[in-house]
Amino acid sequence: MTTIAVLGSGNVARALAGPWLDAGHKVLVGSRDPRRTEADRPLPGVHVTGLPDAARAADLVVNALPGRACLELLSSLAPHLAGKVLVDVANAVETDAQGFASAVLHPGGSLAEEIQRALPAVRVVKTLNTAHVSVMAAPRTLATPPSAFLSGDDSDARRTVGALLTDLGWPREWIVDLGDLRTARAPEAFLLLVGSLVRAWGPVPFAMSVAR
Amino acid sequence: MTTIAVLGSGNVARALAGPWLDAGHKVLVGSRDPRRTEADRPLPGVHVTGLPDAARAADLVVNALPGRACLELLSSLAPHLAGKVLVDVANAVETDAQGFASAVLHPGGSLAEEIQRALPAVRVVKTLNTAHVSVMAAPRTLATPPSAFLSGDDSDARRTVGALLTDLGWPREWIVDLGDLRTARAPEAFLLLVGSLVRAWGPVPFAMSVAR
Repeated sequence: MTTIAVLGSGNVARALAGPWLDAGHKVLVGSRDPRRTEADRPLPGVHVTGLPDAARAADLVVNALPGRACLELLSSLAPHLAGKVLVDVANAVETDAQGFASAVLHPGGSLAEEIQRALPAVRVVKTLNTAHVSVMAAPRTLATPPSAFLSGDDSDARRTVGALLTDLGWPREWIVDLGDLRTARAPEAFLLLVGSLVRAWGPVPFAMSVAR
Repeated sequence: MTTIAVLGSGNVARALAGPWLDAGHKVLVGSRDPRRTEADRPLPGVHVTGLPDAARAADLVVNALPGRACLELLSSLAPHLAGKVLVDVANAVETDAQGFASAVLHPGGSLAEEIQRALPAVRVVKTLNTAHVSVMAAPRTLATPPSAFLSGDDSDARRTVGALLTDLGWPREWIVDLGDLRTARAPEAFLLLVGSLVRAWGPVPFAMSVAR
């Protein structure tokens, strides 16, 4: 059992918190405005606190904060994150008029690497950012197998996060350990396709995959 | 029947030339050193010429030249390419000691966009760069379905290239029309994963896909 703090109170945080709770973990949700989250959209069975309290109490922290704001928010939590694994599932993109990604915010790099640079005492692992929110904890709902990628400079941390993915229903053979954090650049670039894919297919769930 | 000039005499050019010939097209291969190509590794049934002759004779031209050299080579062919569809299947990357991509040469952009900028009278369509050479003309050999992406600013050109993909054995439902050429950035970033995937799985064929 791991005490997991999911930072963020949007759809991604909700998609992850419940299944990890069901898998037997202790799950906290950290919100910038916990009272409003509890009032407007409570999470059954999950304690919602402020971001610092959630980060402090957790063994492992998940970044499901908005991609454009998370670097600053996470930096402010540095003392509570030191030594912990930080699972980054966010995407930092500029958006077009339809709300789809038109450019990545860190071309030639990645959000995950920026977080690691800002928080050198944290072990960042990038994962799940290439799957639609409805697929993150239900990969078998797609007709063809998606991939879950792991990028991070610490191999133990990647292994830890890989185990948490199996708790979300990911078969081990669909999880691809890519290696160091630089590899997060390719999964993050996948976001550039989301608008095109929705325009081509409509709003159906999908996820990046490597076919073999 | 289209007269297709495949520029390049390496494995990618060879993987495409034969199947298009078999599909009933007239296929020329353009080489920087056609006499050496004919002597060392002839292509059965395919006429090998210099790059300018191949480009001049073709209705449609395929860039299967080395990614680092192709921008300069294609620019030198500009008079022979004007008005034609240019299918870009190349990848422009920096490589590590093992020969795998360590960085893309055009971060925040793409090779395809650079070619389009250098050759404004050409209609560039990016495709197939996300598939192992053995998959490009044999997508059904993988256990799970790969995707073939089409990126280009001219929708007629994308349609033309989509038809040529079906001639290579790609089912229409595996071909994803992404839209304008900026979308080539994501498929080009896929190359950053190739080294990791080969290290994880060994030298097996694979290709990028979108699972849905």
